[in-house]
Amino acid sequence: MKNFADVLIEEIIHKNSVLVAGLDPDLQYFPDFLIDSGEVSNQKASEAIYHYNRIVIDAVAEHVVAVKPQLAYYEVYGSEGIRALEKTIAYAKSKNLIVINDAKRGDIGSTSSAYAKAFLGNGSLAGDMVTVNPFLGSDGYLPFIEEAGRNGKGLFLLVKTSNPSSHEVQDVKLENGELLYIKMADDINKIAQQTLGENNYSFIGAVVGATYPMEAEKVRKSLPSSIFLVPGFGAQGGTANDLKPFFDAKGLGALVSSSRGIIYNGSKEEKKTEAVLYEFIAKAARESNDKINEVRLSH
Amino acid sequence: MKNFADVLIEEIIHKNSVLVAGLDPDLQYFPDFLIDSGEVSNQKASEAIYHYNRIVIDAVAEHVVAVKPQLAYYEVYGSEGIRALEKTIAYAKSKNLIVINDAKRGDIGSTSSAYAKAFLGNGSLAGDMVTVNPFLGSDGYLPFIEEAGRNGKGLFLLVKTSNPSSHEVQDVKLENGELLYIKMADDINKIAQQTLGENNYSFIGAVVGATYPMEAEKVRKSLPSSIFLVPGFGAQGGTANDLKPFFDAKGLGALVSSSRGIIYNGSKEEKKTEAVLYEFIAKAARESNDKINEVRLSH
Repeated sequence: MKNFADVLIEEIIHKNSVLVAGLDPDLQYFPDFLIDSGEVSNQKASEAIYHYNRIVIDAVAEHVVAVKPQLAYYEVYGSEGIRALEKTIAYAKSKNLIVINDAKRGDIGSTSSAYAKAFLGNGSLAGDMVTVNPFLGSDGYLPFIEEAGRNGKGLFLLVKTSNPSSHEVQDVKLENGELLYIKMADDINKIAQQTLGENNYSFIGAVVGATYPMEAEKVRKSLPSSIFLVPGFGAQGGTANDLKPFFDAKGLGALVSSSRGIIYNGSKEEKKTEAVLYEFIAKAARESNDKINEVRLSH
Repeated sequence: MKNFADVLIEEIIHKNSVLVAGLDPDLQYFPDFLIDSGEVSNQKASEAIYHYNRIVIDAVAEHVVAVKPQLAYYEVYGSEGIRALEKTIAYAKSKNLIVINDAKRGDIGSTSSAYAKAFLGNGSLAGDMVTVNPFLGSDGYLPFIEEAGRNGKGLFLLVKTSNPSSHEVQDVKLENGELLYIKMADDINKIAQQTLGENNYSFIGAVVGATYPMEAEKVRKSLPSSIFLVPGFGAQGGTANDLKPFFDAKGLGALVSSSRGIIYNGSKEEKKTEAVLYEFIAKAARESNDKINEVRLSH
């Protein structure tokens, strides 16, 4: 039966791209024509964020398969920030882009059900996929899997994150000699194998940082049927050459996310008009996609 | 130097309460006078939630030391839900209640900084404390500690959560025979010891579920100077008698949180007016506080 991994794969092939543009709006990087410097109200910030995101979405739409709003950058501005996110999600959908909410939510079962409804239901914040933190164990992430399954959507569970200190918890060695992130991948795989689509991929994916290619090889063995969401490419130090182990033989099986490297390409001073800003972003998206395709489609 | 743990302890002594009322608004439990049954718009939901929370806050104010909004239940209604949360936070502060945002956020460093600003800064969503998920390691939670330290606020790191499957990740046994949640407690303690206030407690607390009293004893040894936030009392199965190991000899060192047991006390049908609803909630808060005090202040 077709699942959301199949939808993703169709889009990847159609667009010849596995690139995801992170939407991490940070006013300090916004050009002057979009926002006054100094103190801004939540409402002004919200308007500027939505304006910026529209430019980004227009500029990246043909080069990326999905956009990935990072929730923190919206929550900073309270309900006004979340309003900008709602409008951004609606705009991205109107451009036929897949929306991955990078929320890293996870809680006890009843609370996770509420989060799952928020991000994978049919409300104003719901996208197509969401990132989920599995630290609370399976009763904390099963509600997301159930909601995704019911609505033909998907999720990415954090397995090995891109940040420098991810080893402190994720790489602890267990008494049987295994590393924690491998145990977690094994646990997740048991469920993933029951949710395969027509391309033999599950709608239950995993976050594995571009900064950890050797770890990715190991996770791939434990999670052969999960699509990886790969952050850390670009600004966080992951290079295109590091990406090879994330893909399967067909160049599928992973989405590569870049945020600052795309949406803040070029210096603030150079970007004096919307047209120039658009060009900087479009160029970064096109070039990132080309670089990634060179690696993922090479043999 | 005085820190937020000292503020908490002053409030605990002043009110003779360590009880925290969870604000988990769930429309299905709202009495008919507050909300029409059937489909409701985000705006209607938001209004009903704020109305309900005002009643709860008025009813619990003299019996609890803090309120703890659970973010998921607001996010379900998008920006309108978050607007209800902003108004709830402002209302709780106007009643001199401490606000603990139960957000369980945690991400890579730059993103955690944005979350920390949202919840511990001076914006519309900021309370006094926030719950933080430490699965990404120290660079994911240090931004919260820094922001809390700067602003005289506090946080609770998840160490041993109250849900049934928390053992799947948190209780894995490491190669040295230690359990993961103990290793994490030890790691956190190194920082906590550098942030002690006048009562020898740090503003870096820990979440330890009421459902795990034996585990709490062990965590206490590793984290002698961290205040515990103890969810799971009431609806999740933790009883007052289980609470003894969470407290120090003075009956301090822990906050006990109850959500459904307080705010949804009594059947929906019985609560036909605001005054009756208020009475049910006030009674549950008063009785919960008495039960907890009997245990924590016994010798």
